[in-house]
Amino acid sequence: MTSSLLASQPFVKHEKYSSIAPLVEVHRGGLVEAVHYGAIAVVGAQGSLVAHAGDPDLTAYLRSSAKPFQLLPLVESGGADRFGFDDKELAVMAASHSGEPRHVATVRGILDKISLDEDALQCGAHWPLSEESARTLREAGREPTPIYNNCSGKHAGMLAQCAARGLSTHDYLDPRHAIQIAILDTLAALCDVDSSAIGVGIDGCSAPCFAMPLRACALAFARLADPSGLPEPRRSAIRRVVRAMMAYPERVGGEGRLDTDLMRAAPGRLVCKGGAEGYHGIGVVKGGLGIAIKIVDGNGQRAGGPAAIEALRQMGILDGDEVESLRKYYRPAVRNHRGLEVGEVRPVFELVYG
Amino acid sequence: MTSSLLASQPFVKHEKYSSIAPLVEVHRGGLVEAVHYGAIAVVGAQGSLVAHAGDPDLTAYLRSSAKPFQLLPLVESGGADRFGFDDKELAVMAASHSGEPRHVATVRGILDKISLDEDALQCGAHWPLSEESARTLREAGREPTPIYNNCSGKHAGMLAQCAARGLSTHDYLDPRHAIQIAILDTLAALCDVDSSAIGVGIDGCSAPCFAMPLRACALAFARLADPSGLPEPRRSAIRRVVRAMMAYPERVGGEGRLDTDLMRAAPGRLVCKGGAEGYHGIGVVKGGLGIAIKIVDGNGQRAGGPAAIEALRQMGILDGDEVESLRKYYRPAVRNHRGLEVGEVRPVFELVYG
Repeated sequence: MTSSLLASQPFVKHEKYSSIAPLVEVHRGGLVEAVHYGAIAVVGAQGSLVAHAGDPDLTAYLRSSAKPFQLLPLVESGGADRFGFDDKELAVMAASHSGEPRHVATVRGILDKISLDEDALQCGAHWPLSEESARTLREAGREPTPIYNNCSGKHAGMLAQCAARGLSTHDYLDPRHAIQIAILDTLAALCDVDSSAIGVGIDGCSAPCFAMPLRACALAFARLADPSGLPEPRRSAIRRVVRAMMAYPERVGGEGRLDTDLMRAAPGRLVCKGGAEGYHGIGVVKGGLGIAIKIVDGNGQRAGGPAAIEALRQMGILDGDEVESLRKYYRPAVRNHRGLEVGEVRPVFELVYG
Repeated sequence: MTSSLLASQPFVKHEKYSSIAPLVEVHRGGLVEAVHYGAIAVVGAQGSLVAHAGDPDLTAYLRSSAKPFQLLPLVESGGADRFGFDDKELAVMAASHSGEPRHVATVRGILDKISLDEDALQCGAHWPLSEESARTLREAGREPTPIYNNCSGKHAGMLAQCAARGLSTHDYLDPRHAIQIAILDTLAALCDVDSSAIGVGIDGCSAPCFAMPLRACALAFARLADPSGLPEPRRSAIRRVVRAMMAYPERVGGEGRLDTDLMRAAPGRLVCKGGAEGYHGIGVVKGGLGIAIKIVDGNGQRAGGPAAIEALRQMGILDGDEVESLRKYYRPAVRNHRGLEVGEVRPVFELVYG
């Protein structure tokens, strides 16, 4: 019989949609059980498209991949110096953290420095991504509070922006609040698009979230990796944020998280920030490249690792040993409830250059 | 700006893959944030293709959508009569249940009747899908056992097949075991395909799972809904299994589960069984139709309800009020961590007839 999902007919053309490519397949037995489609853009710091898969102009929300940029206005405006934020604190402000004790403690420290308490966080609550942290809460008979939200560092950073500029904090998530306008303008400038061309929605944590073509987001990540062409104070602010994220990758995600282990596997060479619904942004220091990836079905949890690591492998950014060290993210086994290996997740795309 | 994921370029053709159609979109703000692609086949009990979206010959594993068929050999061979299984017990043998107390008690009752205990179940353990059941276990300081596995009813039914025929139980999951051969042959006959043309993998519960074109699975579901053209004892066995599933839809899934609420919304008219990785099979009594749906990215949790209900709506099988009563499955709101409504999931395909 033919392999699952494989047949003689070509794809139907869907005129309404951008071109997408099969990025990652899920195999069970000898058959393909599922396919994750998407698109990838690789862009240089000057804005040239270096490589792509699918349509590099596919538009999608960055979600949490925007966090390093959402933090920049605080640093640029001198707020990080004023409150004496250290690199661990900056890293957690750019994080989608797992709610581990070190994350929660770091966010508490940020709030202490700006004389606010947890009640100021308007991110809502969810169970911490860290199973151990969730279990600890549960066993203590407690429910998670907003500080356990993976975005609590970002929100603490936004509140710090308010505090540094003497602005109101009760409405800090309003897209018309001065800090949100500063964030949108900063992101637009780094992407070389007009801020009016960026789509704005409401994120899982109630903050504004931003949509733009992959190519534009990849440029912003290229400039994170190589800000040398940018004016001050932006250049130094970017260097400080990126240094913090690279120095404390466990603050940006947590144990067993892709961003953390990608940055650990290539220390000082990559700055990585995933987002919900299959988004991923990566800055590559050597060569000043930016990569933006969107899995169109939104399942970054399953397809994000294989897609990101394969792109880095094909670009020669990760070598064979490094890829092998990331195998559980790159080609994870599919296991069933008895732990039997019944299949594998694997990347299947080839980047098109030039 | 253009809507997210919308652009001027047509799809790339992927010659290797079957044709798939955009089935379900996820909206956030004014943009499309994610798209779930897939294919649908609607087939009559005589085997004619009535309608489709994407490629009706797309091949995929049925996963748990095969459960009604996996149960048939027990009933056909007289095993259900011999042990006196009632409709509740047959329904839970065809179930992906939530591990609610009534499910666990029913599976225990089945095992009692065949004089086996829980240790005989080789499905492995996972936390029950019912949050309340999971919480009860947790608060009692207990871990889930195999009887809480959503497939424990199927496994109890397989063990009953062994018991009825005097076969060994320690190897009941081996594809070469006589009950597994009977299951494969039964499914092949109902699909009008040769058993050698059915792909066999290992399911999440360690039982064999089966792959075939959507069109073939849809035929099997059409024959579940209208077995009048089949010989005895198959015809009566199907009627008994379907009657049990329709009479006790809460045994087939659980509270808040799509299959359960679909069968409740159209009592006596539909027999529904979803499977993992975005599979769904539906038999429609009136007209004797079978529907098979595959979401290619595997996210049936998000796209299965909108796709299934929209197909039933377009076929005139569910009316407007019935669709409205299923709204939380049909067009669920996307809510964030503060409960704000930030988007919507909605079906976007049109079935092609003939």
